[in-house]
Amino acid sequence: MSAPDPPPSTALVDLLALLAYGELQAFDQMATDARLAPNLHRRAVLSEMAAAEIVNYRRLAGRLTELGVDVEAAMRPFVPPLEHYHDQTEPRDWLEALAKAYVGDGIADDFYREAALCLDSPDRELVLDVLHDSRYADFAAQEIRDAIAADPKVANPLSMWARRLVGEGLSQAQRVAVERPALTVLIAGRAADQDGIGALFKRLTTAHTARMAAVGLNN
Amino acid sequence: MSAPDPPPSTALVDLLALLAYGELQAFDQMATDARLAPNLHRRAVLSEMAAAEIVNYRRLAGRLTELGVDVEAAMRPFVPPLEHYHDQTEPRDWLEALAKAYVGDGIADDFYREAALCLDSPDRELVLDVLHDSRYADFAAQEIRDAIAADPKVANPLSMWARRLVGEGLSQAQRVAVERPALTVLIAGRAADQDGIGALFKRLTTAHTARMAAVGLNN
Repeated sequence: MSAPDPPPSTALVDLLALLAYGELQAFDQMATDARLAPNLHRRAVLSEMAAAEIVNYRRLAGRLTELGVDVEAAMRPFVPPLEHYHDQTEPRDWLEALAKAYVGDGIADDFYREAALCLDSPDRELVLDVLHDSRYADFAAQEIRDAIAADPKVANPLSMWARRLVGEGLSQAQRVAVERPALTVLIAGRAADQDGIGALFKRLTTAHTARMAAVGLNN
Repeated sequence: MSAPDPPPSTALVDLLALLAYGELQAFDQMATDARLAPNLHRRAVLSEMAAAEIVNYRRLAGRLTELGVDVEAAMRPFVPPLEHYHDQTEPRDWLEALAKAYVGDGIADDFYREAALCLDSPDRELVLDVLHDSRYADFAAQEIRDAIAADPKVANPLSMWARRLVGEGLSQAQRVAVERPALTVLIAGRAADQDGIGALFKRLTTAHTARMAAVGLNN
């Protein structure tokens, strides 16, 4: 008989639960955004992408259960910050919805990818695997580019919208950082061991700026 | 070289397109209803079920494309009646949402099952296959039963709600029947060849009454 597995660390449970609830919320947001689609084809595309988030949710919830964790209880602390973010950034139209997915999920995914590197196998691979594949980002980016090409006037208000998303996202991320110190220590600890927390923020910022420029938005 | 396939009949295209749009709408409705869930576990269950509808949508849309049909154009005539039905029957709480799925989808599925028998292979099998599997109905039925057991007073308003759903559903079904005569002729023709249209309605009604009784609702 092998020794029982040690209980999972709080930081690991927090990260998996944050991601799991994030997938549920992303599903909800994309399903709602699908109604803003200008035609049935685009509506179907977005609905299909929303459905893919649920497959990821299932995998994360399955892993938490395997670790002996009550999934619902583990996700609960992340409900208020994520709901607050989404309530404060409810898209008013199709382009705002796409920009939110492209900009907001882009930063979040970059951050989760950094966090995944703090985990051991098999959780590291699981997290990297469930991060939004690029299909949705590619679709959103193309729609934004086309819209700006058709009417360059949309670029400015859309850039302002993207800045607001980043601001709201950062303030909720700070809240999570304070309320869930184990997760913060895990990520900050690895950053300190490597090239420092400043370098981590620099990487996230550089990637964000490049993403904005790639679709014609200004930072 | 084999001869090209004959163009698909209007009735077949109509039925596949009606089902395809129905799946998209069901996804949308269930994703919205998931927000009414009293806890995260139930919310996740409903979100997962919503995602399953999209898999069905994909299969139906794939078949229409294979038949050389423009999926969006084929679905368009069914948008107004289905949207009207859903707008008129927006659930106000979790139990109304479940009763809508259980009662409304139950009748719709029975009807589509009858319609499927008018089709040739492989479309007959495809339609039978994508009809809501019983998982959702079982889940909804159990929730309704539990709610009535916990508080018998909910049975009456919920029964009234179910009657309203049937009424709204019938009036939109009549609209489709008038606007899409090919589909009507297909279904009525088979019914006439068998035991008559009266018998078809009788089967649908009997199944509906049994479904209501099974969860403690009165007709």
